[in-house]
Amino acid sequence: MKITRRVKEMLSWYEGEPPGVKANLARILMNGKLAGTGRAVILPVDQGWEHGPARSFAKNPAAYDPHYHYQLAIDAGLNAYAAPLGFLEAGADSFAGAIPTILKANNANSLAVTKDQAVTASVHDALRLGCSAIGFTIYPGSEYQFEMIEEVREAALEAKSVGLAVVVWSYPRGGNLSKEGETAIDVIAYAAQIAAQIGANIIKVKPPKDHIEQDAARKVYESEKIDISTLKARIAHVMQSAFNGRRIVVFSGGEAKDIEGVYKEISEIAAGGGTGSIIGRNTFQRKKADAIEMLDHIIGIYKGKG
Amino acid sequence: MKITRRVKEMLSWYEGEPPGVKANLARILMNGKLAGTGRAVILPVDQGWEHGPARSFAKNPAAYDPHYHYQLAIDAGLNAYAAPLGFLEAGADSFAGAIPTILKANNANSLAVTKDQAVTASVHDALRLGCSAIGFTIYPGSEYQFEMIEEVREAALEAKSVGLAVVVWSYPRGGNLSKEGETAIDVIAYAAQIAAQIGANIIKVKPPKDHIEQDAARKVYESEKIDISTLKARIAHVMQSAFNGRRIVVFSGGEAKDIEGVYKEISEIAAGGGTGSIIGRNTFQRKKADAIEMLDHIIGIYKGKG
Amino acid sequence: MKITRRVKEMLSWYEGEPPGVKANLARILMNGKLAGTGRAVILPVDQGWEHGPARSFAKNPAAYDPHYHYQLAIDAGLNAYAAPLGFLEAGADSFAGAIPTILKANNANSLAVTKDQAVTASVHDALRLGCSAIGFTIYPGSEYQFEMIEEVREAALEAKSVGLAVVVWSYPRGGNLSKEGETAIDVIAYAAQIAAQIGANIIKVKPPKDHIEQDAARKVYESEKIDISTLKARIAHVMQSAFNGRRIVVFSGGEAKDIEGVYKEISEIAAGGGTGSIIGRNTFQRKKADAIEMLDHIIGIYKGKG
Amino acid sequence: MKITRRVKEMLSWYEGEPPGVKANLARILMNGKLAGTGRAVILPVDQGWEHGPARSFAKNPAAYDPHYHYQLAIDAGLNAYAAPLGFLEAGADSFAGAIPTILKANNANSLAVTKDQAVTASVHDALRLGCSAIGFTIYPGSEYQFEMIEEVREAALEAKSVGLAVVVWSYPRGGNLSKEGETAIDVIAYAAQIAAQIGANIIKVKPPKDHIEQDAARKVYESEKIDISTLKARIAHVMQSAFNGRRIVVFSGGEAKDIEGVYKEISEIAAGGGTGSIIGRNTFQRKKADAIEMLDHIIGIYKGKG
Amino acid sequence: MKITRRVKEMLSWYEGEPPGVKANLARILMNGKLAGTGRAVILPVDQGWEHGPARSFAKNPAAYDPHYHYQLAIDAGLNAYAAPLGFLEAGADSFAGAIPTILKANNANSLAVTKDQAVTASVHDALRLGCSAIGFTIYPGSEYQFEMIEEVREAALEAKSVGLAVVVWSYPRGGNLSKEGETAIDVIAYAAQIAAQIGANIIKVKPPKDHIEQDAARKVYESEKIDISTLKARIAHVMQSAFNGRRIVVFSGGEAKDIEGVYKEISEIAAGGGTGSIIGRNTFQRKKADAIEMLDHIIGIYKGKG
Repeated sequence: MKITRRVKEMLSWYEGEPPGVKANLARILMNGKLAGTGRAVILPVDQGWEHGPARSFAKNPAAYDPHYHYQLAIDAGLNAYAAPLGFLEAGADSFAGAIPTILKANNANSLAVTKDQAVTASVHDALRLGCSAIGFTIYPGSEYQFEMIEEVREAALEAKSVGLAVVVWSYPRGGNLSKEGETAIDVIAYAAQIAAQIGANIIKVKPPKDHIEQDAARKVYESEKIDISTLKARIAHVMQSAFNGRRIVVFSGGEAKDIEGVYKEISEIAAGGGTGSIIGRNTFQRKKADAIEMLDHIIGIYKGKG
Repeated sequence: MKITRRVKEMLSWYEGEPPGVKANLARILMNGKLAGTGRAVILPVDQGWEHGPARSFAKNPAAYDPHYHYQLAIDAGLNAYAAPLGFLEAGADSFAGAIPTILKANNANSLAVTKDQAVTASVHDALRLGCSAIGFTIYPGSEYQFEMIEEVREAALEAKSVGLAVVVWSYPRGGNLSKEGETAIDVIAYAAQIAAQIGANIIKVKPPKDHIEQDAARKVYESEKIDISTLKARIAHVMQSAFNGRRIVVFSGGEAKDIEGVYKEISEIAAGGGTGSIIGRNTFQRKKADAIEMLDHIIGIYKGKG
Repeated sequence: MKITRRVKEMLSWYEGEPPGVKANLARILMNGKLAGTGRAVILPVDQGWEHGPARSFAKNPAAYDPHYHYQLAIDAGLNAYAAPLGFLEAGADSFAGAIPTILKANNANSLAVTKDQAVTASVHDALRLGCSAIGFTIYPGSEYQFEMIEEVREAALEAKSVGLAVVVWSYPRGGNLSKEGETAIDVIAYAAQIAAQIGANIIKVKPPKDHIEQDAARKVYESEKIDISTLKARIAHVMQSAFNGRRIVVFSGGEAKDIEGVYKEISEIAAGGGTGSIIGRNTFQRKKADAIEMLDHIIGIYKGKG
Repeated sequence: MKITRRVKEMLSWYEGEPPGVKANLARILMNGKLAGTGRAVILPVDQGWEHGPARSFAKNPAAYDPHYHYQLAIDAGLNAYAAPLGFLEAGADSFAGAIPTILKANNANSLAVTKDQAVTASVHDALRLGCSAIGFTIYPGSEYQFEMIEEVREAALEAKSVGLAVVVWSYPRGGNLSKEGETAIDVIAYAAQIAAQIGANIIKVKPPKDHIEQDAARKVYESEKIDISTLKARIAHVMQSAFNGRRIVVFSGGEAKDIEGVYKEISEIAAGGGTGSIIGRNTFQRKKADAIEMLDHIIGIYKGKG
Repeated sequence: MKITRRVKEMLSWYEGEPPGVKANLARILMNGKLAGTGRAVILPVDQGWEHGPARSFAKNPAAYDPHYHYQLAIDAGLNAYAAPLGFLEAGADSFAGAIPTILKANNANSLAVTKDQAVTASVHDALRLGCSAIGFTIYPGSEYQFEMIEEVREAALEAKSVGLAVVVWSYPRGGNLSKEGETAIDVIAYAAQIAAQIGANIIKVKPPKDHIEQDAARKVYESEKIDISTLKARIAHVMQSAFNGRRIVVFSGGEAKDIEGVYKEISEIAAGGGTGSIIGRNTFQRKKADAIEMLDHIIGIYKGKG
């Protein structure tokens, strides 16, 4: 399949990057059922690391197996599969070349007492495992945010120099942020901007709520009459905040909700111009057939059929 | 255009630097409408990082786009454009060679709980993106100031050895400084001295107020009858504090004010011998035509026509 | 002066390079009297190294002084000045930022018994001296050609990663090549191709003669009726051989001839689509006023006025 | 001038150091009007960094200029000039080889809230600037003293391996020390010992007072009847504490006093066997002619003519 | 002694070098009886390495002792002493700071079957031994010349970055050169040019004869009527060939001759504008008193009293 005009346009946003980075972005954007549309759905499975195995996989025990997620992403026709080192090492050979992979290279766990993450993999790991990208989480607002950002930057420089794309999960938390503030529209837009400024090629944020956290920001949202009344409008604002839409931004599934709630949210993300979705628990905690049906529906939404 | 006598004289101040550093300083001083005058106006756009996207760009939504700022700096005939990694990566190819760029290599954000910054880019980034200089913020007074200064020094040694100029944003804050003290004349003069002593080639400070913060300093200002009664006099004192005028010092726009207030302030900066201005929000938060008209007026002031 | 459409088009040929390389190519293409035209005239002064000082400079003893050549290139409004380490070190500070420079980083001398060159400068030297490019000679055909090519490649990879452009002097000689073969059209076209294939951004070759050296090549030139009857036609063929004109190719002055002979040759180079000229001895062996008059005439030819 | 017997003897104290370190110590001891006497007067100018520009230079505004201090040290015939990076960079080329320099490589400022210093220069800086030594401050007693000492040691090891001498400003402060205790004889003697033990080649301390700070020390001073009644006696005790006089120890000017007070103090330092003086503010805050006259008198004292 | 105007002018030739290199050149030019004159006499003792101990030292057995040469250079009031690693290591401590030293860092021996040299010391050795410069021999013309030149360049880049000056012994030999050609005027002038082009700060060549070796050069010498009739004229031509006199060039003693022959030759070197002499065997193979008398006479010649 030839690279579509839309994908070529998207690659042109990354004008400062070496061709290898663009080639890997193209691999992701040209894979699966959404290939060439400029939309993307990615399967991330770092919950075993982040929340523990039972909380992550007990509802659908097949998901304890690392091969399960590779196969799910492939069977559902997704754009890419993202996971920590261990999960990728455990399937990279069997699924070599079968789907673009993103090595999630820092991780936290729920036993931790600090809002920080450990660097758990290297650019070299991503290369030896045939990954297309390397991913990092940052916690803007946290007292560890600057160290985390410095770790990402160091790895991103190295990754790009060897042609790997860089994905940043930008999750505000810690410091003076209220719990509600973590998904406030001003904070999510800010999180997208920060990820873009540190050089992320693909940005992951949570769907923003209509709450405004920062007083200094509220004044501007009110005086400039920035529309935050609907999720669609908020998504559009986040995309604008990601270099006027010149960055790929994918949205996580947000809070647990019923399946219709998921579809509705994704319809608004699609309508607001979000690049796509990155959905973990909502998929692999269902039976595989159900998950594939759900993902098929989501893909349909992004194709404009949902 | 041949290097002017004035610019050659300014380059001679940097006698300890390798020729590459002087070549890059010359590129900045010989660019735009002020080329060769020894004066400089620089566009800095790190507010997306520092204050968030809406607070920075909502007033003039075209400014969400990283290309906008390159084009604004070029169209206004400025000396250089300074921005964080992401903004430069997003335009460095389209605008290759079009205007000298300064990579702002550390950054903070308004979600942060500490008076610190993250190192967000490297000397290698500046080289691969074709920048003329690398820039850092320090917060003299902050409890993080020594770590920040050490980060600058390490990067500055590397930068100069490969011919990049070094710009330091010297913004006193934190520690025992009062809010008013951040722009006190003794503190701003001190901030300029510190930046010069750590090896900055170009120094950015805020326009100083007639307040004096430190008691030990007050005695000297009074006994030596240092004139701080007008902004012009204070600027002259800051320039003197920057190695007797042997360093390039540019002044930020200071607090929000109406356009006549901006012109008046800049007239005093020019009259006091300040090298120039580095103005961000006051420009890109206006419509482009208005911003260019304003910058043209400012350039006129520095040319002695304002 | 803003980057012209033609120069932007030329930069787009180097799509695989980091922005810094394009910025440096832009600096060369946007400098001097031919700025923005897409044509270039470069002053190379490595003859002191290559042929000895008296043979190079005795005709015009002012040229023994390294500052002379910087000033000549500037006063004549050329695009760039190329020289070995010593000549650049001896003027890089006085002429910082005054004209783009190319560090000729390998050199031979006429005392040598082998068709080889010594690597005489490094990428780090080019950076500390503020150069825009690093240059190397290769001798396709020589028994040392592969070592030379490997040295170029190693330096070119490093140079491009730090934003320096790469210039290759591609001079076939040695091995089985006849003296006449060194400027045969098939061999010169081949030399341009080899330089382009090893990653040269700017290629220097000699103007080709209508001789054909290789029997295998002759068959094709005849069967395909490649026009080599005029210098214009041969230049067009060399440009075609340099990636269908998508590389900058400059031609040396060729054999000694009278000034009208020089102008005539350059008219054909210009008519054939050659990017420009790189003329050393023919310029600095004349009195400075005569050299500038000659270069002005040559520049006129490239501007279409000659 | 040949190395004198006295200087050779002094060099022999540093028997563990590589010859390069001794060569640099010899350069300092063989320079200026005290060359060869085994005495030394050094000009230190880090007050701009430490106290701010106005407090340092307003009394004698010529001193804002970094060249002023080089010239003062040369004209007064001093042994060496010590300053932070920026001040040395700004004159190292104009005054290359004119006087031995000491790069003061850590610095604090009066805006700081901690008794710490930032490392502001490196051994590489000292080499590229042609310095003879690298200098560091430690604050014995401060809660940061161990980090400071570790920074000195790390740099000292590197410095000595490349032939640079190491100077330590040993200024007790912080922790449980009273203000008076900072210049107590037991504390100053201790500070000299600590500096010698971490490998300092040249030690700078303040002239000690007859106060005793530590109870445990007082017992010994009393039981052993250590004479601390005169400054001369206290200086002799400090020299003894610096490896029985086998280290170069220079004394700062101490508190502001009239010129006769300065001469009297220095006479006692000389009589007590102190190596010399390191006087900053007392010199550069006077008119240059007065400073030179004063320094000439001081030099006379050390020559035994005062 | 203050740096003289002449020495400052000479330092300005090395505008591309860091201040440390100029400081070390100043140390050499400001040492000994010729201090400040812009002339220099250097003692080189590498003959033990190059020709064997008996051939070098048997005539004056005191010269077997490495301390002998340090003392000779000091007692004679020379500018510097140059020797291989072992000789310097054996005296660097005893003579620390007593005279500037040049570490001769590559060496050959008369047992060798190739016209090559071994790299026998490093930049780090020069630093730990307190040297002012590092020296290398190249053999232009030899089949090993390119490797030798590459070794020099690598070490020179490192040396300069840490403030050491670079001395090149440029001795044409090997390849197609005739024995007579090794000191032919065209070849010696070429040798000086090559050393300057690879970045030498100080160049050592042999006094040139009126022979011309290269046919291509002969044409130019004849057509341009270059005066090579007297040694004075030839020296002037060599100085011109060393960047129009902008490099320090010292001449070796040439062939064995009686003492009047030596004085006559040096008078011509001085008259032709040569910077000075570098004389080994002619000095240390005499009794020390005789050597000092001879050197005193030579120094007198350079002072214009000979």
